[in-house]
Amino acid sequence: MSQKRVAVIGAGASGLPAIKCCLDEGLTPVCFERTEHIGGLWRYTDEPVDGQGCVMKSTVINTSKETMAYSDFPIPAKYPIFMHNTQASSPQSICCDTLVYEYFKLYAQKFDLEKYIQFNTEVLYVKRADNFSELGQWEIKYRNKSTGEEKTEIFDGVLVCTGHHAEKNAPTFPGLSQFQGKVVHTHDYRKPDGLQDKRVLIIGIGNSGGDAAVELSRIASQVFLSTRRGTWILHRVAAEGYPLDMIFAKRIYVLLQQYFPNLISKFMKKDINKRINHDLYSLTPDYDVFQQHPMVNDDMPNRIICGAIKIKTDIKRFTETGVEFIDGTKEDNIDVVLLATGYTFGFPFIDKEIIDVKNNRVQLYKYMYPPDIEHNTLAVIGCFQPLGAIMPISEMQCRLATRVIKGDTVLPPRGIMWQDIREKEAAMAQRYVKSQRHTIQVDYIPFMDELAKLVGCNVNYCELIKDPVLALHALFGTVTPYVYRLCGPGKWSGARDAFLTQWDRTVAPLKTRPLPCRDRASWKDSYLFNLGVVLILFFMIRFLFTLL
Amino acid sequence: MSQKRVAVIGAGASGLPAIKCCLDEGLTPVCFERTEHIGGLWRYTDEPVDGQGCVMKSTVINTSKETMAYSDFPIPAKYPIFMHNTQASSPQSICCDTLVYEYFKLYAQKFDLEKYIQFNTEVLYVKRADNFSELGQWEIKYRNKSTGEEKTEIFDGVLVCTGHHAEKNAPTFPGLSQFQGKVVHTHDYRKPDGLQDKRVLIIGIGNSGGDAAVELSRIASQVFLSTRRGTWILHRVAAEGYPLDMIFAKRIYVLLQQYFPNLISKFMKKDINKRINHDLYSLTPDYDVFQQHPMVNDDMPNRIICGAIKIKTDIKRFTETGVEFIDGTKEDNIDVVLLATGYTFGFPFIDKEIIDVKNNRVQLYKYMYPPDIEHNTLAVIGCFQPLGAIMPISEMQCRLATRVIKGDTVLPPRGIMWQDIREKEAAMAQRYVKSQRHTIQVDYIPFMDELAKLVGCNVNYCELIKDPVLALHALFGTVTPYVYRLCGPGKWSGARDAFLTQWDRTVAPLKTRPLPCRDRASWKDSYLFNLGVVLILFFMIRFLFTLL
Repeated sequence: MSQKRVAVIGAGASGLPAIKCCLDEGLTPVCFERTEHIGGLWRYTDEPVDGQGCVMKSTVINTSKETMAYSDFPIPAKYPIFMHNTQASSPQSICCDTLVYEYFKLYAQKFDLEKYIQFNTEVLYVKRADNFSELGQWEIKYRNKSTGEEKTEIFDGVLVCTGHHAEKNAPTFPGLSQFQGKVVHTHDYRKPDGLQDKRVLIIGIGNSGGDAAVELSRIASQVFLSTRRGTWILHRVAAEGYPLDMIFAKRIYVLLQQYFPNLISKFMKKDINKRINHDLYSLTPDYDVFQQHPMVNDDMPNRIICGAIKIKTDIKRFTETGVEFIDGTKEDNIDVVLLATGYTFGFPFIDKEIIDVKNNRVQLYKYMYPPDIEHNTLAVIGCFQPLGAIMPISEMQCRLATRVIKGDTVLPPRGIMWQDIREKEAAMAQRYVKSQRHTIQVDYIPFMDELAKLVGCNVNYCELIKDPVLALHALFGTVTPYVYRLCGPGKWSGARDAFLTQWDRTVAPLKTRPLPCRDRASWKDSYLFNLGVVLILFFMIRFLFTLL
Repeated sequence: MSQKRVAVIGAGASGLPAIKCCLDEGLTPVCFERTEHIGGLWRYTDEPVDGQGCVMKSTVINTSKETMAYSDFPIPAKYPIFMHNTQASSPQSICCDTLVYEYFKLYAQKFDLEKYIQFNTEVLYVKRADNFSELGQWEIKYRNKSTGEEKTEIFDGVLVCTGHHAEKNAPTFPGLSQFQGKVVHTHDYRKPDGLQDKRVLIIGIGNSGGDAAVELSRIASQVFLSTRRGTWILHRVAAEGYPLDMIFAKRIYVLLQQYFPNLISKFMKKDINKRINHDLYSLTPDYDVFQQHPMVNDDMPNRIICGAIKIKTDIKRFTETGVEFIDGTKEDNIDVVLLATGYTFGFPFIDKEIIDVKNNRVQLYKYMYPPDIEHNTLAVIGCFQPLGAIMPISEMQCRLATRVIKGDTVLPPRGIMWQDIREKEAAMAQRYVKSQRHTIQVDYIPFMDELAKLVGCNVNYCELIKDPVLALHALFGTVTPYVYRLCGPGKWSGARDAFLTQWDRTVAPLKTRPLPCRDRASWKDSYLFNLGVVLILFFMIRFLFTLL
């Protein structure tokens, strides 16, 4: 029997591991990429293209290198902890673009993925092939954008890797049509050129709004940041300067979050307010910490305290030259309105009968599978919003989807799928503020575990018992993607080493200057001394009690 | 007898209160200002002028509004806590320049100071008048820069308010003359235009170097920050987001610092490392926290962790296109070298016999008075480097100097002055790293107290006992400049109110969005409940001990 052929639509953060997982499972990938490049929104372009997501020039990714790596391809040690977008790592770097893109390039090179990609090719439709009920095949029509040539082909499987940051969500506001200044969506905002000394109003306090606000605050005359609900601000740079997600991506926090959600929420709230009192900064939302997708922004408080950014309430209405907020305050002479109101997603090239998205709501098993069709040979990849890194979760979805297409993994029956979908919807409704923003929320470790269970690659502690160091790290350490390559299908011989050296690679890029020699640690700093002090205190208190 | 005439040289942060204090003491000020504006280095100009200090366009002052105010003129409530330089506070603002400058403008307006200023006028020399030994008068020759007209006049006193950030300190490095890229001193750096996508090397880790580094890191391709010694980084935005200096400008910390300097240094070091582990970030200096003027920079760790700034050691030598560091590492393709190597100061228009500055070392009583001349009618104002705000200390020096010129305050004899100078030199040598940077260091509260003692305006707690609320605040609260207007000469009736409302004005600019209504605090959060829990635990432990 010849190899099954799988269509991969998109060659971005999800499409690349899709190609690779096809190869791993002995499937033949055919990737259709609309642009001339891999990397999706991480390939920076100065000019915006409609329907094509792209980071800002100054974007710094908000997940750290070890938590965002593909599970069998650690990010090189010299790369910074949080990869920035603007700069190449060295003049000798392999491409002249962004660091995340450079990492994708390295990944594609290592596994020789680019030869499976048809660039400049747009998918026009995906529909069930005539023999679908029998073989689960799909018919895809695509068009070469250079030559205009159109073609139709049959595939055994389809992985839809088109992302969910391409189509602008641009709500209207009373009076906005009369407003005479410029109105731009963050989708079309790349860099702050031309906004020097302007008065800018940004609507929306998500991560795009926050990033644009701090950037513009450095050159604009004034930035107003309007929010309906407020937000909790998390810092990439957490205690002692360690990356936040490396600290919290641990099983202990998952357990606490699962069994004591209120306690954890209170603890986090206290911790967040200890760093920045959100009342003081007019940021406090009317919801708890985990009820809304948080803003990750290290610079926001610095820009608020110097007055360069002013946090404002929701918009009441626009005038020709300014804006009125719902608290009655007004600002005139607004030059530019920046809509940081997020994105809508959809799959216009797929029959509505198969996948229907309404107001960012879609019912897919594990955010991948339309539950009602006979064969699970079509899967959506990367259509979720994680508290954590997106790349390794996409990769895990690809591992699952390719095994399902191959036939090595069988998904549960329709009823179970629907039950899972409904449970997820209910959990989301219970936890999150009702909003178009919170329809595809997942938590990094729990969702990875769910998918890994289906793949069969969850950590098997019974198996790991022979290697207690590894088992302990897997249980108590930071859960990076390598963990899911230690056991089961797709096991990688380099995973143990990659996992145990994750902190080395994390701190490596910061070692740029030898530290001054210092005296050896004083005996007063030793654990033994401190233990002694504690014991002495204990007995002193005990003695005091005997006197009472 | 006619009013004494006092020459004030410079109309910046020190010159303005000098004029005002002259008026307060019934002296006639004549201010000579070289430029066409008040404000000194806080008046932003796009183009650098040799010998004229100026902030960068993006500068945010690192002292908070209440600690930096002149003692009888609080900064308006709506002004941000840390005033930025770029933007005007509102389209209706009184001038189109920086906020600090705007505050100076308001101060000058309120006390009608500008009419005493001769703009565009350069002082050519200051020398003892023929009758100096008798009357203490000074002869000043000055030139109108527009007309070229020169004039000589006799004054009863001179206040030298020319600052110490005007003349570049530009050390040479091996090979720098062969380096083919651009070499710029921070004195001539205003904004990052033209440095997009360049590889920039910044030498010097003072505040200018830090500010330029974080700014450039957002647009340059790579920023290297070279430091001989490393540095401790302080954050303007301290615990809970409150301004650092408002937290630490308290008498309790002064006492602790005075009597337990090592303990405080250790505590600070621990606290600083808890926020950012300086070893991890390759920042740790080979000196303790208070041994070097610290860097205040909120954004530095964020820019290091994303790799946009790399901390490097001292320079070994330059090549034509790059640089070698003393740890042997090399970086090639350096486009621009920015010398953030500080300033030298001097008084070229004053006889060397009177004030002689060598390598930034000068021997002046209270950093004001040449101790060896017969009359204390010439004083230097603002020639010190405080851990804290410069403006109120300058103002206090002016209060002292004008009272001395008037004759109401008599300075101690020459011997005592020399003793004080030597003690200060010794204390500085003991505490600080030997460097041209640490020749005029002062601590905010102790130095204010010293000067206030001579003026006679220190807080008189016996007098304040009638007003216990005020006395308690003066003793335990944040020591803002208003404290020195509560008693003694120069007492201001508004001081009590200004002092007791300092926190209101501090937080006022952050109140830009009404907070969501929330449930009243739970009884579980109450002190009583917590006390109860502690007591129950106490008795439980006690009970356990009885069982042992």
